[in-house]
Amino acid sequence: MEQVSRKAGSNIVLALDLPLGKPKKLLFQAKKILEAVHPHVCAVKFNHHLTLPLGLFGDLQDLLNQAKGFGLPTIMDCKINDIGSTNQTIAEYYFEAGFDAVTANPFVGWEDGLCPVFNKAKRMNRGVLLLVYMSHKGASEGYGQKIIGEEREKPQFQYRLFAERALKWGAAGAVVGSTYPEKIKELNLVLKEKVPIYSPGIGIQGGNTEITIKNGATYLIVGRAITQAENPLRIAIELKRIAHKSAK
Amino acid sequence: MEQVSRKAGSNIVLALDLPLGKPKKLLFQAKKILEAVHPHVCAVKFNHHLTLPLGLFGDLQDLLNQAKGFGLPTIMDCKINDIGSTNQTIAEYYFEAGFDAVTANPFVGWEDGLCPVFNKAKRMNRGVLLLVYMSHKGASEGYGQKIIGEEREKPQFQYRLFAERALKWGAAGAVVGSTYPEKIKELNLVLKEKVPIYSPGIGIQGGNTEITIKNGATYLIVGRAITQAENPLRIAIELKRIAHKSAK
Repeated sequence: MEQVSRKAGSNIVLALDLPLGKPKKLLFQAKKILEAVHPHVCAVKFNHHLTLPLGLFGDLQDLLNQAKGFGLPTIMDCKINDIGSTNQTIAEYYFEAGFDAVTANPFVGWEDGLCPVFNKAKRMNRGVLLLVYMSHKGASEGYGQKIIGEEREKPQFQYRLFAERALKWGAAGAVVGSTYPEKIKELNLVLKEKVPIYSPGIGIQGGNTEITIKNGATYLIVGRAITQAENPLRIAIELKRIAHKSAK
Repeated sequence: MEQVSRKAGSNIVLALDLPLGKPKKLLFQAKKILEAVHPHVCAVKFNHHLTLPLGLFGDLQDLLNQAKGFGLPTIMDCKINDIGSTNQTIAEYYFEAGFDAVTANPFVGWEDGLCPVFNKAKRMNRGVLLLVYMSHKGASEGYGQKIIGEEREKPQFQYRLFAERALKWGAAGAVVGSTYPEKIKELNLVLKEKVPIYSPGIGIQGGNTEITIKNGATYLIVGRAITQAENPLRIAIELKRIAHKSAK
């Protein structure tokens, strides 16, 4: 990831999210966007917007191969949060389909939860990104709540516990919403340089590129701001430029 | 759901979960199991074990049509936990594909979280089941944690907050693991008869049919205990019989 990012001079992860549509049209649109912006991004993130209509082993393979052809790592944003055996099955199918990383929700816990996913990823040399603070408004209702642990004296914020899990479990990244720049700043201190922060929510959700980078995000996840733009290429170049300038 | 259950004299929801395999073989096995046990179950729950290899609009349609042909409601256990617009997209694809209900994780919150899913379900006359206490060991690391709310004086257990959300948001069901019978008993009192409890984890995970029913579960979700049995029909009949006896 780091290598690709350095080579492309970009820390933009393209979230290839398109609104509901017919499979053939979605495939055509997605390929066109990826073809246009690929020199200016460092990875591609997929979500159910495409896996459900195209099928993981169906037309989605076409897109995954296109991304691979451009030398871009691929992330499946499946937000795994089931019991251990199911989580492992999910991860195996996504890895088998060609994804380099999956996202997972640390809320589900370790034992018979995400342990099998991290083990499987390690064996297959893939990554697991953990959700630490999501970008939407309701995030405060879960990620922002205060927890009393049995062995702790002081209450802890949920997202701080999740950041500790990211460090302890060896996550390849921590997802923290760009709509909460103060959380990025705080979590960047906790995660130091061990776990890079991936930040979604730039643009349509209200996140600001410069502020997000200055507060410590390593990668920006950008979806609709690019995919729904009249000229995705222009936006991708512009975001890359601002992100690059802000990182100095 | 209630009608089908009464008619079939069964409160067993078949979780059609099969281990990793090739699509054609999985489809064959799943159809065979469903064909055998359908008179003894009241619904079919699908998970990524089948949607990923078969494809939502691919061979999975064959199974969904089979279930519908038997008059059985279908549930997609997708455990939705993304931002609002993505959650809505996910729900729309599953509903469009024919599912009668989806599962979702209340941790993601209401605003720009599950609100669009409940709205979409209401408009399309479908159901949303909320995860309240899962069946795996690590469930205590999330569902079992203690929360301090801003407006509350006393700390609350996470699962109690989730049960309150199930009532407030109008969930069609609450998922509580059969491996935690004391939680079923406690939550049954909270949910009264407004939100039925769906309980997974019977058999392989350690849940006991009789205890689960006696503590207040309305439906039993049974997967591997049936799907991996030498004789799925015999197990389904036996579980139905025990559940029926225990409910008296």
